[in-house]
Amino acid sequence: MNFSSKLLENAVEEFSKLPGVGKKTALRLVLHLLKSTSAEVHQFSNSLTTLKDNIKYCEKCHNISDEVICEICSAPKRDNSIICVVEDTRDVMAIENTHQFQGLYHVLNGLISPMDGVGPGDLTIESLVKRVQHEDVQEVIFALSANMEGDTTIFYLHKKLKDFNIKISTIARGIAFGGEIEYADEITLGRSIATRVPYENTLIR
Amino acid sequence: MNFSSKLLENAVEEFSKLPGVGKKTALRLVLHLLKSTSAEVHQFSNSLTTLKDNIKYCEKCHNISDEVICEICSAPKRDNSIICVVEDTRDVMAIENTHQFQGLYHVLNGLISPMDGVGPGDLTIESLVKRVQHEDVQEVIFALSANMEGDTTIFYLHKKLKDFNIKISTIARGIAFGGEIEYADEITLGRSIATRVPYENTLIR
Ligand SMILES: [Zn+2]
Ligand SMILES: [Zn+2]
Repeated sequence: MNFSSKLLENAVEEFSKLPGVGKKTALRLVLHLLKSTSAEVHQFSNSLTTLKDNIKYCEKCHNISDEVICEICSAPKRDNSIICVVEDTRDVMAIENTHQFQGLYHVLNGLISPMDGVGPGDLTIESLVKRVQHEDVQEVIFALSANMEGDTTIFYLHKKLKDFNIKISTIARGIAFGGEIEYADEITLGRSIATRVPYENTLIR
Repeated sequence: MNFSSKLLENAVEEFSKLPGVGKKTALRLVLHLLKSTSAEVHQFSNSLTTLKDNIKYCEKCHNISDEVICEICSAPKRDNSIICVVEDTRDVMAIENTHQFQGLYHVLNGLISPMDGVGPGDLTIESLVKRVQHEDVQEVIFALSANMEGDTTIFYLHKKLKDFNIKISTIARGIAFGGEIEYADEITLGRSIATRVPYENTLIR
Protein backbone atom coordinates (compact mmCIF):
# COMPACT_ATOMS: atom_id res chain seq x y z
CA MET A 1 0.00 0.00 0.00
CA ASN A 2 1.23 3.47 -0.93
CA PHE A 3 0.10 5.88 1.74
CA SER A 4 -0.01 9.59 1.02
CA SER A 5 0.88 10.27 4.66
CA LYS A 6 3.37 8.67 7.03
CA LEU A 7 1.09 9.46 9.98
CA LEU A 8 -1.79 7.68 8.28
CA GLU A 9 0.45 4.72 7.48
CA ASN A 10 1.57 4.52 11.13
CA ALA A 11 -1.97 4.41 12.47
CA VAL A 12 -3.01 1.80 9.88
CA GLU A 13 0.08 -0.23 10.80
CA GLU A 14 -0.95 -0.21 14.47
CA PHE A 15 -4.56 -1.22 13.73
CA SER A 16 -3.49 -4.04 11.44
CA LYS A 17 -1.61 -5.63 14.37
CA LEU A 18 -5.02 -6.44 15.88
CA PRO A 19 -6.19 -10.03 15.37
CA GLY A 20 -8.36 -10.49 12.29
CA VAL A 21 -7.74 -6.94 11.06
CA GLY A 22 -6.11 -6.75 7.61
CA LYS A 23 -4.59 -3.65 6.05
CA LYS A 24 -7.75 -2.66 4.17
CA THR A 25 -9.93 -3.02 7.25
CA ALA A 26 -7.38 -1.10 9.32
CA LEU A 27 -7.43 1.74 6.78
CA ARG A 28 -11.24 1.80 6.83
CA LEU A 29 -11.28 2.01 10.64
CA VAL A 30 -8.61 4.73 10.80
CA LEU A 31 -10.36 6.84 8.13
CA HIS A 32 -13.59 6.46 10.11
CA LEU A 33 -11.87 7.74 13.25
CA LEU A 34 -10.35 10.57 11.24
CA LYS A 35 -13.87 11.77 10.45
CA SER A 36 -14.67 11.95 14.16
CA THR A 37 -13.95 15.09 16.19
CA SER A 38 -10.58 15.53 17.87
CA ALA A 39 -12.31 15.06 21.26
CA GLU A 40 -13.77 11.76 20.11
CA VAL A 41 -10.41 10.47 18.86
CA HIS A 42 -8.75 11.43 22.15
CA GLN A 43 -11.56 9.76 24.07
CA PHE A 44 -11.04 6.59 22.04
CA SER A 45 -7.28 6.62 22.68
CA ASN A 46 -7.63 7.49 26.36
CA SER A 47 -10.09 4.67 27.00
CA LEU A 48 -7.31 2.25 26.06
CA THR A 49 -4.37 3.80 27.87
CA THR A 50 -6.50 4.40 30.98
CA LEU A 51 -7.54 0.75 30.91
CA LYS A 52 -3.97 -0.49 30.43
CA ASP A 53 -2.52 1.84 33.09
CA ASN A 54 -5.17 1.17 35.72
CA ILE A 55 -6.26 -2.38 35.09
CA LYS A 56 -6.36 -4.62 38.14
CA TYR A 57 -6.78 -8.36 38.39
CA CYS A 58 -8.75 -9.70 41.36
CA GLU A 59 -6.26 -11.10 43.89
CA LYS A 60 -8.54 -14.04 44.51
CA CYS A 61 -9.97 -15.15 41.14
CA HIS A 62 -7.69 -13.15 38.75
CA ASN A 63 -10.60 -11.76 36.79
CA ILE A 64 -10.20 -8.24 35.37
CA SER A 65 -11.44 -5.85 38.04
CA ASP A 66 -11.44 -2.20 39.07
CA GLU A 67 -10.85 -3.25 42.70
CA VAL A 68 -8.32 -5.47 44.49
CA ILE A 69 -11.05 -8.05 45.08
CA CYS A 70 -13.66 -8.25 42.31
CA GLU A 71 -17.41 -7.78 42.70
CA ILE A 72 -18.15 -11.47 42.37
CA CYS A 73 -15.58 -12.59 44.95
CA SER A 74 -16.76 -9.95 47.40
CA ALA A 75 -20.51 -10.54 46.91
CA PRO A 76 -21.91 -11.99 50.19
CA LYS A 77 -24.59 -14.05 48.42
CA ARG A 78 -22.25 -16.14 46.24
CA ASP A 79 -21.49 -19.75 47.15
CA ASN A 80 -17.83 -19.86 48.27
CA SER A 81 -17.69 -23.64 48.12
CA ILE A 82 -17.82 -23.95 44.33
CA ILE A 83 -15.13 -22.62 42.00
CA CYS A 84 -15.69 -22.52 38.27
CA VAL A 85 -12.37 -22.54 36.38
CA VAL A 86 -12.36 -20.56 33.11
CA GLU A 87 -9.88 -19.36 30.53
CA ASP A 88 -10.54 -15.62 30.61
CA THR A 89 -12.94 -12.82 31.51
CA ARG A 90 -15.10 -13.44 28.44
CA ASP A 91 -16.03 -16.84 29.83
CA VAL A 92 -16.95 -15.30 33.20
CA MET A 93 -19.21 -12.87 31.34
CA ALA A 94 -20.77 -15.66 29.27
CA ILE A 95 -21.49 -17.84 32.32
CA GLU A 96 -22.78 -14.94 34.44
CA ASN A 97 -25.14 -14.21 31.58
CA THR A 98 -26.80 -17.62 31.97
CA HIS A 99 -27.75 -16.88 35.63
CA GLN A 100 -27.17 -20.62 36.28
CA PHE A 101 -24.11 -20.32 38.47
CA GLN A 102 -23.87 -18.79 41.93
CA GLY A 103 -20.37 -19.90 42.95
CA LEU A 104 -17.04 -18.17 42.41
CA TYR A 105 -14.63 -18.22 39.47
CA HIS A 106 -10.98 -18.81 38.86
CA VAL A 107 -9.56 -17.20 35.73
CA LEU A 108 -6.58 -19.16 34.37
CA ASN A 109 -5.60 -16.37 32.00
CA GLY A 110 -5.08 -18.80 29.13
CA LEU A 111 -4.89 -22.53 28.41
CA ILE A 112 -1.89 -24.84 28.32
CA SER A 113 -0.66 -24.82 24.73
CA PRO A 114 2.82 -26.20 23.99
CA MET A 115 2.37 -25.06 20.37
CA ASP A 116 2.01 -21.44 21.49
CA GLY A 117 4.64 -21.81 24.20
CA VAL A 118 2.10 -21.52 27.04
CA GLY A 119 3.01 -23.81 29.93
CA PRO A 120 1.31 -24.40 33.31
CA GLY A 121 3.61 -21.79 34.88
CA ASP A 122 2.11 -19.06 32.68
CA LEU A 123 -1.36 -19.66 34.11
CA THR A 124 -2.80 -19.01 37.59
CA ILE A 125 -2.74 -22.71 38.46
CA GLU A 126 -0.65 -22.49 41.66
CA SER A 127 -3.07 -19.87 42.93
CA LEU A 128 -6.00 -22.23 42.23
CA VAL A 129 -4.31 -25.03 44.18
CA LYS A 130 -3.79 -22.64 47.11
CA ARG A 131 -7.46 -21.65 47.04
CA VAL A 132 -8.48 -25.30 47.18
CA GLN A 133 -6.03 -25.83 50.08
CA HIS A 134 -6.98 -22.80 52.15
CA GLU A 135 -10.55 -21.90 51.26
CA ASP A 136 -13.66 -23.91 52.04
CA VAL A 137 -13.88 -25.40 48.53
CA GLN A 138 -16.07 -28.44 47.97
CA GLU A 139 -16.28 -28.51 44.20
CA VAL A 140 -14.22 -27.33 41.24
CA ILE A 141 -15.94 -27.11 37.86
CA PHE A 142 -13.84 -26.99 34.70
CA ALA A 143 -15.58 -24.75 32.16
CA LEU A 144 -12.90 -24.77 29.48
CA SER A 145 -13.22 -24.80 25.70
CA ALA A 146 -13.80 -28.21 24.11
CA ASN A 147 -10.54 -28.37 22.19
CA MET A 148 -7.02 -29.75 22.52
CA GLU A 149 -5.79 -26.93 24.77
CA GLY A 150 -8.85 -27.18 27.01
CA ASP A 151 -8.48 -30.95 27.37
CA THR A 152 -4.74 -30.69 28.09
CA THR A 153 -5.37 -28.05 30.74
CA ILE A 154 -8.15 -30.09 32.38
CA PHE A 155 -5.88 -33.16 32.44
CA TYR A 156 -3.13 -31.17 34.14
CA LEU A 157 -5.48 -29.49 36.64
CA HIS A 158 -7.10 -32.79 37.53
CA LYS A 159 -3.71 -34.27 38.40
CA LYS A 160 -3.02 -31.29 40.66
CA LEU A 161 -6.41 -31.39 42.42
CA LYS A 162 -7.43 -35.05 42.54
CA ASP A 163 -5.89 -35.77 45.96
CA PHE A 164 -7.88 -33.04 47.70
CA ASN A 165 -11.19 -34.12 49.15
CA ILE A 166 -13.31 -32.22 46.61
CA LYS A 167 -15.68 -32.98 43.79
CA ILE A 168 -14.16 -32.26 40.37
CA SER A 169 -16.52 -31.82 37.43
CA THR A 170 -16.54 -30.53 33.88
CA ILE A 171 -19.42 -28.76 32.24
CA ALA A 172 -21.46 -31.08 30.04
CA ARG A 173 -20.18 -31.05 26.50
CA GLY A 174 -23.18 -29.83 24.61
CA ILE A 175 -20.58 -27.83 22.76
CA ALA A 176 -19.09 -29.32 19.61
CA PHE A 177 -15.42 -30.31 19.60
CA GLY A 178 -13.45 -27.23 18.67
CA GLY A 179 -16.19 -24.95 20.04
CA GLU A 180 -15.22 -22.08 22.28
CA ILE A 181 -17.05 -21.31 25.53
CA GLU A 182 -17.39 -17.61 24.84
CA TYR A 183 -19.32 -18.15 21.61
CA ALA A 184 -21.79 -20.71 23.00
CA ASP A 185 -25.42 -19.56 23.19
CA GLU A 186 -26.82 -18.92 26.68
CA ILE A 187 -29.15 -21.92 26.75
CA THR A 188 -26.51 -24.46 25.74
CA LEU A 189 -24.03 -22.96 28.14
CA GLY A 190 -26.48 -22.75 31.05
CA ARG A 191 -27.63 -26.32 30.49
CA SER A 192 -24.10 -27.66 30.26
CA ILE A 193 -23.34 -26.15 33.65
CA ALA A 194 -26.53 -27.59 35.18
CA THR A 195 -25.79 -31.09 33.80
CA ARG A 196 -22.09 -31.09 34.62
CA VAL A 197 -20.54 -34.52 35.19
CA PRO A 198 -17.75 -35.76 37.51
CA TYR A 199 -14.45 -35.48 35.66
CA GLU A 200 -13.68 -39.19 36.27
CA ASN A 201 -16.79 -40.15 34.31
CA THR A 202 -15.48 -38.41 31.23
CA LEU A 203 -12.30 -40.51 31.40
CA ILE A 204 -14.14 -43.86 31.47
CA ARG A 205 -15.85 -43.36 28.10
CA MET B 1 -22.91 -7.61 28.57
CA ASN B 2 -21.88 -7.60 32.23
CA PHE B 3 -18.35 -6.31 32.47
CA SER B 4 -16.28 -6.98 35.57
CA SER B 5 -14.56 -3.61 35.11
CA LYS B 6 -15.88 -0.17 34.17
CA LEU B 7 -12.56 0.63 32.48
CA LEU B 8 -12.84 -2.48 30.32
CA GLU B 9 -16.44 -1.63 29.48
CA ASN B 10 -15.41 1.89 28.44
CA ALA B 11 -12.71 0.68 26.08
CA VAL B 12 -15.04 -1.93 24.56
CA GLU B 13 -17.71 0.76 24.16
CA GLU B 14 -15.26 2.94 22.22
CA PHE B 15 -14.13 0.09 19.95
CA SER B 16 -17.69 -0.95 19.19
CA LYS B 17 -18.35 2.52 17.75
CA LEU B 18 -16.11 1.54 14.82
CA PRO B 19 -17.95 0.46 11.66
CA GLY B 20 -18.50 -3.30 11.45
CA VAL B 21 -17.20 -3.92 14.98
CA GLY B 22 -19.77 -5.53 17.31
CA LYS B 23 -19.48 -5.81 21.09
CA LYS B 24 -17.91 -9.29 21.01
CA THR B 25 -15.32 -8.30 18.44
CA ALA B 26 -14.59 -5.11 20.38
CA LEU B 27 -14.02 -7.14 23.55
CA ARG B 28 -11.71 -9.52 21.67
CA LEU B 29 -9.65 -6.61 20.31
CA VAL B 30 -9.42 -4.84 23.67
CA LEU B 31 -8.38 -8.03 25.48
CA HIS B 32 -5.72 -8.54 22.81
CA LEU B 33 -4.35 -5.04 23.41
CA LEU B 34 -4.46 -5.67 27.16
CA LYS B 35 -2.02 -8.54 26.64
CA SER B 36 0.42 -6.18 24.90
CA THR B 37 2.98 -4.20 26.89
CA SER B 38 2.13 -0.77 28.24
CA ALA B 39 4.52 0.75 25.69
CA GLU B 40 2.71 -1.02 22.86
CA VAL B 41 -0.70 0.18 24.02
CA HIS B 42 0.56 3.76 24.30
CA GLN B 43 2.12 3.47 20.84
CA PHE B 44 -1.22 2.28 19.46
CA SER B 45 -3.09 5.16 21.10
CA ASN B 46 -0.52 7.77 20.14
CA SER B 47 -0.54 6.74 16.49
CA LEU B 48 -4.19 7.81 16.39
CA THR B 49 -4.03 11.06 18.32
CA THR B 50 -0.84 12.09 16.50
CA LEU B 51 -2.58 11.44 13.18
CA LYS B 52 -5.71 13.35 14.19
CA ASP B 53 -3.78 16.29 15.66
CA ASN B 54 -1.32 16.67 12.79
CA ILE B 55 -3.25 15.52 9.74
CA LYS B 56 -3.11 17.84 6.76
CA TYR B 57 -5.11 17.84 3.56
CA CYS B 58 -3.31 18.89 0.38
CA GLU B 59 -4.41 22.44 -0.45
CA LYS B 60 -4.61 21.54 -4.12
CA CYS B 61 -6.13 18.03 -4.36
CA HIS B 62 -7.42 17.62 -0.74
CA ASN B 63 -5.79 14.21 -0.34
CA ILE B 64 -4.51 13.33 3.14
CA SER B 65 -0.93 14.57 3.33
CA ASP B 66 1.88 15.33 5.75
CA GLU B 67 2.67 18.49 3.79
CA VAL B 68 0.68 21.54 2.64
CA ILE B 69 0.96 20.29 -0.95
CA CYS B 70 0.98 16.51 -1.31
CA GLU B 71 3.71 14.43 -2.97
CA ILE B 72 1.65 13.75 -6.07
CA CYS B 73 0.68 17.40 -6.67
CA SER B 74 4.30 18.50 -6.17
CA ALA B 75 5.88 15.76 -8.30
CA PRO B 76 7.44 17.43 -11.41
CA LYS B 77 6.82 14.39 -13.64
CA ARG B 78 3.05 14.21 -13.24
CA ASP B 79 0.76 15.46 -16.01
CA ASN B 80 -0.92 18.63 -14.70
CA SER B 81 -3.46 18.68 -17.51
CA ILE B 82 -5.47 15.67 -16.32
CA ILE B 83 -7.38 15.56 -13.03
CA CYS B 84 -8.86 12.30 -11.78
CA VAL B 85 -11.77 12.94 -9.41
CA VAL B 86 -12.15 10.39 -6.59
CA GLU B 87 -14.16 9.96 -3.42
CA ASP B 88 -11.35 9.53 -0.88
CA THR B 89 -7.72 8.68 -0.26
CA ARG B 90 -8.36 4.93 -0.59
CA ASP B 91 -9.27 5.47 -4.25
CA VAL B 92 -6.06 7.46 -4.83
CA MET B 93 -4.11 4.55 -3.34
CA ALA B 94 -5.98 2.01 -5.46
CA ILE B 95 -5.42 3.94 -8.70
CA GLU B 96 -1.76 4.72 -7.93
CA ASN B 97 -1.32 1.00 -7.41
CA THR B 98 -2.32 0.31 -11.04
CA HIS B 99 0.55 2.53 -12.38
CA GLN B 100 -1.83 3.45 -15.23
CA PHE B 101 -2.37 7.08 -14.34
CA GLN B 102 0.18 9.90 -14.40
CA GLY B 103 -2.09 12.90 -13.90
CA LEU B 104 -3.23 14.60 -10.70
CA TYR B 105 -6.15 13.83 -8.40
CA HIS B 106 -9.00 15.70 -6.80
CA VAL B 107 -10.38 14.14 -3.62
CA LEU B 108 -14.05 15.01 -3.13
CA ASN B 109 -14.06 13.76 0.45
CA GLY B 110 -17.33 11.88 -0.05
CA LEU B 111 -20.16 11.52 -2.57
CA ILE B 112 -23.44 13.40 -2.84
CA SER B 113 -25.95 11.39 -0.81
CA PRO B 114 -29.25 13.06 0.14
CA MET B 115 -30.09 9.95 2.22
CA ASP B 116 -27.01 10.56 4.41
CA GLY B 117 -27.46 14.33 4.37
CA VAL B 118 -24.37 14.89 2.21
CA GLY B 119 -24.90 17.74 -0.26
CA PRO B 120 -22.57 19.28 -2.88
CA GLY B 121 -21.50 21.90 -0.32
CA ASP B 122 -20.00 19.21 1.91
CA LEU B 123 -17.61 18.13 -0.82
CA THR B 124 -14.60 19.90 -2.41
CA ILE B 125 -16.55 20.67 -5.58
CA GLU B 126 -16.05 24.45 -5.63
CA SER B 127 -12.33 23.86 -5.30
CA LEU B 128 -12.43 21.51 -8.30
CA VAL B 129 -14.24 24.11 -10.40
CA LYS B 130 -11.59 26.69 -9.44
CA ARG B 131 -8.82 24.30 -10.47
CA VAL B 132 -10.46 23.82 -13.86
CA GLN B 133 -10.79 27.60 -14.20
CA HIS B 134 -7.30 28.57 -13.13
CA GLU B 135 -5.05 25.61 -13.87
CA ASP B 136 -4.09 24.27 -17.25
CA VAL B 137 -6.64 21.44 -17.13
CA GLN B 138 -7.53 19.67 -20.36
CA GLU B 139 -9.35 16.61 -19.04
CA VAL B 140 -11.29 15.62 -15.96
CA ILE B 141 -11.81 11.91 -15.32
CA PHE B 142 -14.54 10.79 -12.95
CA ALA B 143 -13.37 7.68 -11.07
CA LEU B 144 -16.31 7.32 -8.72
CA SER B 145 -18.03 4.21 -7.41
CA ALA B 146 -20.63 2.66 -9.73
CA ASN B 147 -23.62 3.23 -7.48
CA MET B 148 -26.42 5.73 -6.93
CA GLU B 149 -24.24 8.21 -5.02
CA GLY B 150 -21.47 8.00 -7.60
CA ASP B 151 -23.88 8.58 -10.47
CA THR B 152 -25.58 11.49 -8.69
CA THR B 153 -22.22 13.10 -8.01
CA ILE B 154 -21.05 12.65 -11.61
CA PHE B 155 -24.30 14.16 -12.89
CA TYR B 156 -23.82 17.21 -10.64
CA LEU B 157 -20.12 17.62 -11.48
CA HIS B 158 -20.81 17.34 -15.22
CA LYS B 159 -23.32 20.18 -15.01
CA LYS B 160 -20.72 22.31 -13.23
CA LEU B 161 -17.90 21.53 -15.68
CA LYS B 162 -19.55 21.03 -19.06
CA ASP B 163 -19.20 24.67 -20.20
CA PHE B 164 -15.44 24.70 -19.76
CA ASN B 165 -13.42 23.76 -22.81
CA ILE B 166 -12.23 20.42 -21.39
CA LYS B 167 -12.72 16.74 -22.04
CA ILE B 168 -14.87 15.05 -19.38
CA SER B 169 -14.66 11.29 -19.08
CA THR B 170 -15.62 8.52 -16.71
CA ILE B 171 -13.58 5.39 -16.12
CA ALA B 172 -14.97 2.44 -18.08
CA ARG B 173 -17.48 0.52 -16.05
CA GLY B 174 -15.92 -2.88 -15.86
CA ILE B 175 -17.06 -2.69 -12.28
CA ALA B 176 -20.46 -4.15 -11.48
CA PHE B 177 -23.25 -1.82 -10.40
CA GLY B 178 -22.93 -1.36 -6.67
CA GLY B 179 -19.21 -2.08 -6.80
CA GLU B 180 -16.84 0.19 -4.96
CA ILE B 181 -13.64 1.53 -6.51
CA GLU B 182 -11.44 0.73 -3.56
CA TYR B 183 -12.28 -2.99 -3.66
CA ALA B 184 -11.71 -3.43 -7.40
CA ASP B 185 -8.76 -5.59 -8.41
CA GLU B 186 -5.78 -3.79 -9.97
CA ILE B 187 -6.26 -5.17 -13.48
CA THR B 188 -9.94 -4.22 -13.76
CA LEU B 189 -9.24 -0.81 -12.29
CA GLY B 190 -6.21 -0.14 -14.49
CA ARG B 191 -8.07 -1.25 -17.61
CA SER B 192 -11.12 0.87 -16.80
CA ILE B 193 -8.90 3.96 -16.58
CA ALA B 194 -7.17 3.11 -19.86
CA THR B 195 -10.51 2.60 -21.67
CA ARG B 196 -12.30 5.60 -20.18
CA VAL B 197 -15.08 7.05 -22.32
CA PRO B 198 -16.36 10.62 -22.80
CA TYR B 199 -19.07 11.26 -20.24
CA GLU B 200 -21.57 12.30 -22.96
CA ASN B 201 -21.30 8.83 -24.51
CA THR B 202 -22.55 7.23 -21.32
CA LEU B 203 -25.66 9.40 -21.46
CA ILE B 204 -26.65 8.41 -25.01
CA ARG B 205 -26.98 4.67 -24.30
ZN1 LIG C 1 -12.51 -12.21 42.04
ZN1 LIG D 1 -2.31 17.11 -3.69
